[in-house]
Amino acid sequence: MADFTPTERNVLAALDTDSMLAFLSELVAIPSLADAESPAQERMAAEMRASGLDTDVWEIDFANLQRDPAFSWEVERARGLGVVGSIGNDSHDGRSLILNGHIDVVPAGDSANWSFDPWQATIHNGRMYGRGALDMKGGLVCALWAARAIAQAGVTLKGRLHIQSVIGEEDGGCGTLASIHRGYRADAAIIPEPTRMAIAPAQAGAHNVRISVPGLSAHGCYREEGVSAIEKYYVVQQALLALEADRNQRMRHPLFAGYRLPYPLSIGTVRAGNWPSSVAEELIAEGRYGIGIGEDSQAARRELEDAVARAAAQDPWLRDHPPQVTWWGGTFEPAECPTDHPIVSLLAHSHQAFAPAPPLEGMPYGADMRLLVHQAGIPTVMYGPGDVRLAHKPDEYVPVADLIHVARTLALTALRFIGHT
Amino acid sequence: MADFTPTERNVLAALDTDSMLAFLSELVAIPSLADAESPAQERMAAEMRASGLDTDVWEIDFANLQRDPAFSWEVERARGLGVVGSIGNDSHDGRSLILNGHIDVVPAGDSANWSFDPWQATIHNGRMYGRGALDMKGGLVCALWAARAIAQAGVTLKGRLHIQSVIGEEDGGCGTLASIHRGYRADAAIIPEPTRMAIAPAQAGAHNVRISVPGLSAHGCYREEGVSAIEKYYVVQQALLALEADRNQRMRHPLFAGYRLPYPLSIGTVRAGNWPSSVAEELIAEGRYGIGIGEDSQAARRELEDAVARAAAQDPWLRDHPPQVTWWGGTFEPAECPTDHPIVSLLAHSHQAFAPAPPLEGMPYGADMRLLVHQAGIPTVMYGPGDVRLAHKPDEYVPVADLIHVARTLALTALRFIGHT
Repeated sequence: MADFTPTERNVLAALDTDSMLAFLSELVAIPSLADAESPAQERMAAEMRASGLDTDVWEIDFANLQRDPAFSWEVERARGLGVVGSIGNDSHDGRSLILNGHIDVVPAGDSANWSFDPWQATIHNGRMYGRGALDMKGGLVCALWAARAIAQAGVTLKGRLHIQSVIGEEDGGCGTLASIHRGYRADAAIIPEPTRMAIAPAQAGAHNVRISVPGLSAHGCYREEGVSAIEKYYVVQQALLALEADRNQRMRHPLFAGYRLPYPLSIGTVRAGNWPSSVAEELIAEGRYGIGIGEDSQAARRELEDAVARAAAQDPWLRDHPPQVTWWGGTFEPAECPTDHPIVSLLAHSHQAFAPAPPLEGMPYGADMRLLVHQAGIPTVMYGPGDVRLAHKPDEYVPVADLIHVARTLALTALRFIGHT
Repeated sequence: MADFTPTERNVLAALDTDSMLAFLSELVAIPSLADAESPAQERMAAEMRASGLDTDVWEIDFANLQRDPAFSWEVERARGLGVVGSIGNDSHDGRSLILNGHIDVVPAGDSANWSFDPWQATIHNGRMYGRGALDMKGGLVCALWAARAIAQAGVTLKGRLHIQSVIGEEDGGCGTLASIHRGYRADAAIIPEPTRMAIAPAQAGAHNVRISVPGLSAHGCYREEGVSAIEKYYVVQQALLALEADRNQRMRHPLFAGYRLPYPLSIGTVRAGNWPSSVAEELIAEGRYGIGIGEDSQAARRELEDAVARAAAQDPWLRDHPPQVTWWGGTFEPAECPTDHPIVSLLAHSHQAFAPAPPLEGMPYGADMRLLVHQAGIPTVMYGPGDVRLAHKPDEYVPVADLIHVARTLALTALRFIGHT
């Protein structure tokens, strides 16, 4: 630890990873699905207070927030909480920093596909398993424990450090938008989403898309007198696969050199028919459409709409009964942060106190980064524990070593970026 | 009316088709979907009593009924009513006859696809539109009005005429099975399902099938690390289409000479995925599998299971993650009635009092006929108003002329088959 200042050493010593893992376990056991985030948010707020943070908890005014064109969600909520814990000097002597993480998690799916109970954190072979352990209660708890260590070491930061626990990231980012409306700004932000501890100054966009494919109902015993929307969907599906291949070949970006498909078009759900012995008169497919860094989102949408229309024009039924494309729910614009911004170099330098230099690469998934960048003008990077490839899956896990490494790196970065007396 | 006896003339004169259409309209406006049949059943019972029928109304004992191997349903019901109205002599001097019709209807689907409100009968250009007008409140009301005309004409039947209003036909026939358990038997039965007034002494079978296709969940932004159950389903779908083509070429029957596909395999619903930006880890498809006249049902099931297994064996993912086939809900065995049975010739003769000779042909759809034939040993034919091709669709309708024709034919057939003093 020869490279550390005495203050840094004190903070790292105050960073208690046992209690961090215990709290993360507790948080995983609160199933904070969309529209069910409040108990976990209340637990976060209590832990922030216990950690010595000035804790701001408020009811989000969704009626007002929805007027913001950047607002999007898939799951309508009657209520939701904003939670931000802050420490440090408010006199603007130093720079301010936001560490932002989301509390909401996606459904666990069939728990029979899990080796462990998805709603109970299990540490096995150095990995913590559980829904949300990786995406991203792990990173969120690292951020809180970094701030807690600074507070408990008695360090006075020259500027403000804000830990934001937000809802609704998975379905459009209503929680981060609410924090922006609440007035939170900073000179930089870090989102500890799972990046395998790569520093990610760019994120691809993703727009949610819904495609409705019409059929013609009939009694199943005369199925040829109807038109199955299930069969017709595959005309559309083939067109989507071709569009995805074309776009990913065309739109290359140096930060995404390692990806075969940086901008996937993935259909996640289909629903068709309402009776086994009737021919399905409609199929609804929903998915996510990857948007390239710097790409015009409206032009990207038109590309998809045109691809569906062209495919439909080749089909005798769909020509006269065209599929409908609608854009709804999560709308994640692509975003980037200059790679020469001080937060990038400071984060890389702090990370290297414990490991080799981290890679610099873009992330293919949409996240709240674009809201902080576009709506609040805050240079933002993602950097966090674990591999997002394991997210939204059975047996989601985060390596315990990553949690410890990220918590330490965030503590050091906060000290160095903000400054202290 | 020169061919009619004075009694037949009196009965035909007593058959008031205006009130019949008014009552059918009233019945269409009661949305008697599966598990919501009781209000319509109570209305039927009231009308039977008002028509002078001895009316038997009972709570079906589902707990007991479910022990019968012939029991099947898709929609679990806490309660349901049996309703049978009877007239005539119980001393067995004449033959007895059952007229059986179901009160339950399938969902209307999107009412935007209808030209008229599905839950309000509309008579337009000689057709009555509405969900259930055709399938089969129309035929059921014809049967009731035939009995009502006999009662109101003051005719004493030598044997018993039973009008059965049953629930649950669409999802497996629990109502007809309940009537059999209640003890109702007869020398013959007619089900006025829509046959375009063809006499149908045979019905193909239909077994409900559920196929679950496994995928592997992943975040949509790394979709290639998962396996989409939606894409994998199409391996299965192709195998089902090939199986259907093979079976329908192989299993020909003279009563089905007019059908290209007498035994369709039609998938009516699919459900996959639980989050637009996750790769779907399972797809569930449900449909109906046509069974041939005289075919062994268990062998037919094995054919489908084998076809799915063979297709899966050719696919790298499905080979190790085989789709599961389950048989559930509606299980309609094929059934037939000897074409030389007196009910067939009497029905044809009565029909011809008003129109040319009716065709004799099999019906491709499963219905309660097989329960009356196999569980109660009652020779049964189907003969009813309208074209089943319009059932389970938007703009379902029954021609008013067919309703009048069928009501008259059923009244004459009952008089002639049962005999009267």
